[in-house]
Amino acid sequence: MSDQNIKPMTSWVQVPKNSDFTIYNLPFGVFETKRISARAGIAIGDKIVDLSVLHDEGFFSDITQLPNDIFQRNTLNDFIGLGKSVTKKVRERVQDLLLEDNENLREHQCRGKAMVGRKEAIMLLPVKIGDYTDFYSSKEHATNVGAMFRDPDNALLPNWKHLPVGYHGRASSIIPSGIPISRPKGQFKDGDMEAPAFGPSRRLDFELELAFITGKQTKMGESVSTDEAEDFIFGFVLFNDWSARDIQSWEYVPLGPFLGKNFASSISPWIVTLEALEFVRIEGPKQEPSVLPYLQCQKNHAFDINLEVYIKPENKEATKVCSSNYKYMYWNIAQQLAHHTINGCNINVGDMYASGTISGPTADSYGSMLELAWKGTKPIQLNDGDERTFIEDGDTVIMKGYSEHNGVRVGFGEVSSKVLPAS
Amino acid sequence: MSDQNIKPMTSWVQVPKNSDFTIYNLPFGVFETKRISARAGIAIGDKIVDLSVLHDEGFFSDITQLPNDIFQRNTLNDFIGLGKSVTKKVRERVQDLLLEDNENLREHQCRGKAMVGRKEAIMLLPVKIGDYTDFYSSKEHATNVGAMFRDPDNALLPNWKHLPVGYHGRASSIIPSGIPISRPKGQFKDGDMEAPAFGPSRRLDFELELAFITGKQTKMGESVSTDEAEDFIFGFVLFNDWSARDIQSWEYVPLGPFLGKNFASSISPWIVTLEALEFVRIEGPKQEPSVLPYLQCQKNHAFDINLEVYIKPENKEATKVCSSNYKYMYWNIAQQLAHHTINGCNINVGDMYASGTISGPTADSYGSMLELAWKGTKPIQLNDGDERTFIEDGDTVIMKGYSEHNGVRVGFGEVSSKVLPAS
Repeated sequence: MSDQNIKPMTSWVQVPKNSDFTIYNLPFGVFETKRISARAGIAIGDKIVDLSVLHDEGFFSDITQLPNDIFQRNTLNDFIGLGKSVTKKVRERVQDLLLEDNENLREHQCRGKAMVGRKEAIMLLPVKIGDYTDFYSSKEHATNVGAMFRDPDNALLPNWKHLPVGYHGRASSIIPSGIPISRPKGQFKDGDMEAPAFGPSRRLDFELELAFITGKQTKMGESVSTDEAEDFIFGFVLFNDWSARDIQSWEYVPLGPFLGKNFASSISPWIVTLEALEFVRIEGPKQEPSVLPYLQCQKNHAFDINLEVYIKPENKEATKVCSSNYKYMYWNIAQQLAHHTINGCNINVGDMYASGTISGPTADSYGSMLELAWKGTKPIQLNDGDERTFIEDGDTVIMKGYSEHNGVRVGFGEVSSKVLPAS
Repeated sequence: MSDQNIKPMTSWVQVPKNSDFTIYNLPFGVFETKRISARAGIAIGDKIVDLSVLHDEGFFSDITQLPNDIFQRNTLNDFIGLGKSVTKKVRERVQDLLLEDNENLREHQCRGKAMVGRKEAIMLLPVKIGDYTDFYSSKEHATNVGAMFRDPDNALLPNWKHLPVGYHGRASSIIPSGIPISRPKGQFKDGDMEAPAFGPSRRLDFELELAFITGKQTKMGESVSTDEAEDFIFGFVLFNDWSARDIQSWEYVPLGPFLGKNFASSISPWIVTLEALEFVRIEGPKQEPSVLPYLQCQKNHAFDINLEVYIKPENKEATKVCSSNYKYMYWNIAQQLAHHTINGCNINVGDMYASGTISGPTADSYGSMLELAWKGTKPIQLNDGDERTFIEDGDTVIMKGYSEHNGVRVGFGEVSSKVLPAS
């Protein structure tokens, strides 16, 4: 864990105990209300700071690179694309303005307009996503899946420890928290069936992931080194990579997942910046065998982030079914981005890169129902007497993530999505 | 072949013999010149009709749904998104204006400004591509690859005849004809190597494909039936799906191709509309076993389009290395789109869907060097005494496509890209 001391801070905005949105966090998002159109905001406690109001009132007037309407757009792409030198200044300015002793905003006539209740706000997708990539970077997850579907003694495929395996996913169907999804229909063929059948998926699953968003583009032919990678990464969101296991297992050879995944992915709407997570930067797992030079790192790129998954059946209480941590990832974000671009593949502002399912070493830390209920053989008990092997209609799946260290808490809020019956 | 009679037409624009851009074709593209900024055009012979000039001069004044600046944008997305009822009217109006006997444009004072020489124009990407999907729909190609890498007696995997296998690719690295690509670097591990190595790909390949572009969006949860599919498809381009076979074969298990593909894909810049290809609509291959109901079709969705690939070494003449045809595709576009959306995956205007490598039944009709030179074992002889197993630095790969029937020709022009050494 980083031993850098964080300056203790308190805000004049009341921040509930255990809030993810402390003054140390200040994540960026895009929101609208019944009264106001889509715009950029920063979350603190139960409030959203309307950045467009602050900008109009001149609070950023010395940050010269900010276009007039930059916070009134319905995505953060243009803002993020201004670069970290600008986005950091904006976040630090807001942090300063929110400090207990700072009366500039606290006593300003615009305060009522600038501070919007989170309950009033509808959160939108924070960025227009160009391309979306999904990695497969948890050794525990890859091992579990390999053991289930191939060979427990040779669960990891030969390439797995040499490169961060990844594939391209569908950007169009990434949606923010709160939007329900319909159970997908498709083809499946279980081992005992003579021919494939068609119908609603019988094995709908979540995948607990974290995704990073790039804030800087490259040209085709350029590569990003592990050293440079974090300068290209703006921040993270929670990512539920919905999966239909029966569709996926029938379709995926030889070219990978397609309809088993592309019907929906749900994200938390607040982008937690890399800067806000600096205090939980840690060393990642030892990589053995050693990796090729372009994947070697000079510093730590792992982060200690607690992750949880809850299932809430219709009209019943939620049960926590998974407690995992982002620190288990074998491949880190710098390696993922360096690998992704080593062949000259160009990246854009707003691209999204999910981690792959984040499973830990223990049976209660697996990041999917496939693993938690071990391919349907070990049903998970829920609080109300229900049990689950996969996700049922009416269930809401909720993922949470937060870091805590020395009394400082920085979190993601949640990504929550209800499953509706197949339409 | 469709027996519908095409009304014979000639234009006052001189169209060279064997031109792909006849008055029967009239494909849409986006171009700029040294004098004028990016805008929409229609190709005929060696000319481009500047649609923005025609619009300004009132030639489309009765097509009420056209915004004023619709042809002055740097992509066709907004235009295509107006729907076929509008795009068809524009194309038919231009066709009418170009007819030999029609003097409205021919004798108009704007003619000089409206007709731009194709040689003066730089062709840009015709659409902003949201998501890009690559199918694997040629039985001959899938059989060849399966025979080479798995088992000649069981070359096709069990799912192949039941669904159009596909996967998501990288949209950011799709580029128009004429832009050179750099040989990608990456990891590879040949069978005789103990550990993976890193360097420029030693097995750079093309893949001969055709891609369709959607012109209409769906909402998440909606599906497009095979009957409705063509209403969602605006037209086609030639698609060279560059592939690094050594990188691909090491990385692709279990989640499919990634860095072996995403460094570049090149397309021809003119979108040939579905309407222009109506005269070569034919019956596709018989599908046995019969497919599930959602993949069954009420009409023919295959097209007879001749496809050719040429390799031109640096400072040498080009050699034709492949003659294939789009009619060999086992899965048609209506089935591809119906399958893609059967799970509720939403699509957008400007999305691109490539066919997968289009191989025919004979050894000279295979759509990749992997197959033509059979995994490096049968080098291809070029005119100048060179031979090739894969693509070398300095080579230009040129793909052409055209349909001909009863004296009518409609073609794609070409997609031509030179390979530069790894940077």
